[in-house]
Amino acid sequence: MAKKIPTRLYLSEDEIPKFWYNLRADMKEKPDPILHPGTLQAATAADLEAVFCKEPVKQELNDTDRLIPIPAGIQEFYTAYRPAPLVRAYFLEKALGTPAEIYYKHEGTNTSGSHKLNSAAAQAFYAKEEGLTSLTTETGAGQWGSAMAMAAAFYGIKLTVYMVKVSSEQKPYRKSLMETYGASLIPSPSDTTEAGRKILEQDPNTGGSLGCAISEAVETAVKTDKCRYVLGSVLNHVLLHQSIIGQEAKAALDKFNVKPDIIIGCAGGGSNLGGIIAPFMGEKLAGKSDTRFIAVEPASCPSFTRGRYAYDFGDTAKTTPLIKMQTLGNGFIPSANHAGGLRYHGMNSVLSKLYHDGFLEARAEVQTDVFDAAVQFAKIEGILPAPESSHAIKAAIDEALECKRTGEKKVILFGLTGTGYFDMSAYMAYNAKTMSDHIPTDEELARGFATIPDIPQNA
Amino acid sequence: MAKKIPTRLYLSEDEIPKFWYNLRADMKEKPDPILHPGTLQAATAADLEAVFCKEPVKQELNDTDRLIPIPAGIQEFYTAYRPAPLVRAYFLEKALGTPAEIYYKHEGTNTSGSHKLNSAAAQAFYAKEEGLTSLTTETGAGQWGSAMAMAAAFYGIKLTVYMVKVSSEQKPYRKSLMETYGASLIPSPSDTTEAGRKILEQDPNTGGSLGCAISEAVETAVKTDKCRYVLGSVLNHVLLHQSIIGQEAKAALDKFNVKPDIIIGCAGGGSNLGGIIAPFMGEKLAGKSDTRFIAVEPASCPSFTRGRYAYDFGDTAKTTPLIKMQTLGNGFIPSANHAGGLRYHGMNSVLSKLYHDGFLEARAEVQTDVFDAAVQFAKIEGILPAPESSHAIKAAIDEALECKRTGEKKVILFGLTGTGYFDMSAYMAYNAKTMSDHIPTDEELARGFATIPDIPQNA
Repeated sequence: MAKKIPTRLYLSEDEIPKFWYNLRADMKEKPDPILHPGTLQAATAADLEAVFCKEPVKQELNDTDRLIPIPAGIQEFYTAYRPAPLVRAYFLEKALGTPAEIYYKHEGTNTSGSHKLNSAAAQAFYAKEEGLTSLTTETGAGQWGSAMAMAAAFYGIKLTVYMVKVSSEQKPYRKSLMETYGASLIPSPSDTTEAGRKILEQDPNTGGSLGCAISEAVETAVKTDKCRYVLGSVLNHVLLHQSIIGQEAKAALDKFNVKPDIIIGCAGGGSNLGGIIAPFMGEKLAGKSDTRFIAVEPASCPSFTRGRYAYDFGDTAKTTPLIKMQTLGNGFIPSANHAGGLRYHGMNSVLSKLYHDGFLEARAEVQTDVFDAAVQFAKIEGILPAPESSHAIKAAIDEALECKRTGEKKVILFGLTGTGYFDMSAYMAYNAKTMSDHIPTDEELARGFATIPDIPQNA
Repeated sequence: MAKKIPTRLYLSEDEIPKFWYNLRADMKEKPDPILHPGTLQAATAADLEAVFCKEPVKQELNDTDRLIPIPAGIQEFYTAYRPAPLVRAYFLEKALGTPAEIYYKHEGTNTSGSHKLNSAAAQAFYAKEEGLTSLTTETGAGQWGSAMAMAAAFYGIKLTVYMVKVSSEQKPYRKSLMETYGASLIPSPSDTTEAGRKILEQDPNTGGSLGCAISEAVETAVKTDKCRYVLGSVLNHVLLHQSIIGQEAKAALDKFNVKPDIIIGCAGGGSNLGGIIAPFMGEKLAGKSDTRFIAVEPASCPSFTRGRYAYDFGDTAKTTPLIKMQTLGNGFIPSANHAGGLRYHGMNSVLSKLYHDGFLEARAEVQTDVFDAAVQFAKIEGILPAPESSHAIKAAIDEALECKRTGEKKVILFGLTGTGYFDMSAYMAYNAKTMSDHIPTDEELARGFATIPDIPQNA
């Protein structure tokens, strides 16, 4: 008889993976290169090092080495909060009455409350190694800023966080968490940068946007001695660091000889999705599995399902390198009623390419349906999920119910990226039934698309 | 060479203890019995069953059976969030430069954010088993109410929570968390009970107190069909359920042949402290160890260090049974500036007896010192602790620094009862340096002592 699979699968400390999984090494057709915004030529390491730390830049451009060793100094920090449990959702399976097996990788057990710490740890470590004394970044919903604040405190490096103004007003506790860890918080747009001042002149009452906060953080990094900028999603090196999620999940499943039929992740910039699928997608690209991969995005910010596959800027000030990606246009602004993260206009280039080439499915969900799934999950599995993670929960429940209909005993794995402790105002809106489900009109999308730069798209 | 102890020790699912540890069975001198408030005679099971569920009443009165089997239905729920990790604080040891080994049992990894879920699970289970349809309780800081809301959702039983009014106003997110899990919240004092109406008549602007909320919850339970009252601390059956903490910690330490020299717990009503020390204190009472046990309480509510050992009521309306305990008097009101929990006037009777007989030490700390320790711990170990837990952190750091001074390589274990995600307003006050450290004056204590009933104390 097969060994009973425990509810919570923890790897032992010495089983925590020692390598990140670089999915690009497995792709026969690579994503198009990042372009320098001035020359429109493929960006070099030297170009990118003006903004980013050196080792992450190497990782950004590396599309040949499948396994990248995790430095001992990062492995050490990982012991402060990893391994993260892989949970068999026995309670949810029973409540749904599905023959499917449901698993989720729970990345919300650390204080930042999400998977973002995996890349924050790496980026703070490399900055310290390189001799930098400070870093800048931006945060919207707050998970990334919290993660960076923790990592910066751990490695002893200063951190300035540009926090989207409306978010810093709505989430004083997120702000306070980052400050408790020693970070300096600046509501964005601010008068500390040219980019910020320019936006404030145009619209003094703006609540800010992620794209604007990025512009400010990049500008400050470039103008400050021994300082660089760190980003929590979208870029390839971030997905590389997040592959620890997939590596751990696969190691745990392999111990019980379990092969997922469906892997589901929520998708904003793609860091969690790219992380959880990495080693499994590698098997698929090698023709060794038929696993389905499903990205779930908010209907209010549908870069996969309604976006264009085109070169676009990462920020609204159009200062970052250009990335070929699924994008709604750098000027796209999602509905103010949208709770939580997953509000970014673009999508990581690897995931965009995999989607474009048919290896990755995508679907969009409205937030009321997402919160229905979140509350159902919370009551049954005990964990209050982050709004972002709940997109994946919604799809996992739908797939499990489809199995119930067909009688198929599929294995479903999804990424539970984080917890909802700092999202209670969204839960309050849901409980009070004041949440809206605005879906961008074609006109709203057109206004976003108009901001995509007009350059040769096969550069 | 000894096996390297991992940073996070997780028992496997089948190693989760199957028995609670009933410390009273080891005590040669038992605590004095609970008294019926009318007759002043030892309360019988029948007396207590008017208020509490039947099986917990049996446990309340059982001072002979050392090991009590944990029912399968509770073990099942435990798999939803246990085992809780025992963490070796390598990072903290290094930062302090101490030769001491520091361990903490981290009970904050579940959504309620604290150890309270251990007893909530048991009490909801027994209520369901007994055929009850609803429960009432009270909550101050919110951990207990959150835990009960989760457990009630899991077992499918209705829950009404009387939340201390000032707390429900200061912590809307805690309130919303409980409501998300389906609980009904009533700010206390309320007009739903005689006890509440009486207090509102006397003082319409009162912010409420735990003692008053207890009176309301008990009254409603007694007057409602198929309904009982559940309490999250102070009582013996609660400590019994919390002994899972000590049982797990001991099982994990035994695997590495580690014997704690000092065990530290924060103390409000005593549930965490009684839980973590149970099996270790059993060894001490049997003469098999010299372990020191230290209770850490807030200087603003010092029931051990400045209280009296006397029979007192559990609530301000003087309706509950009488307990012989360390008490500040049921009418004692801690400073409004005190953040977090640990605000109860009394202390569990077993812990009070052990303190009185010299088996347990106690110390009191002011909250600024406690938050200093909390932020130091957060930056070094990565976990943002609850204000309550930080009392234990403060004492653990002090003991580790004492080891540094003496060169002794002691083994220190403390209870990290929970996380501080819902206590950010307290961290904000600390960061803004607006926190006060009021210690009750002798006059304030005297006003509390005057409310201790004048009955024969050796009844």
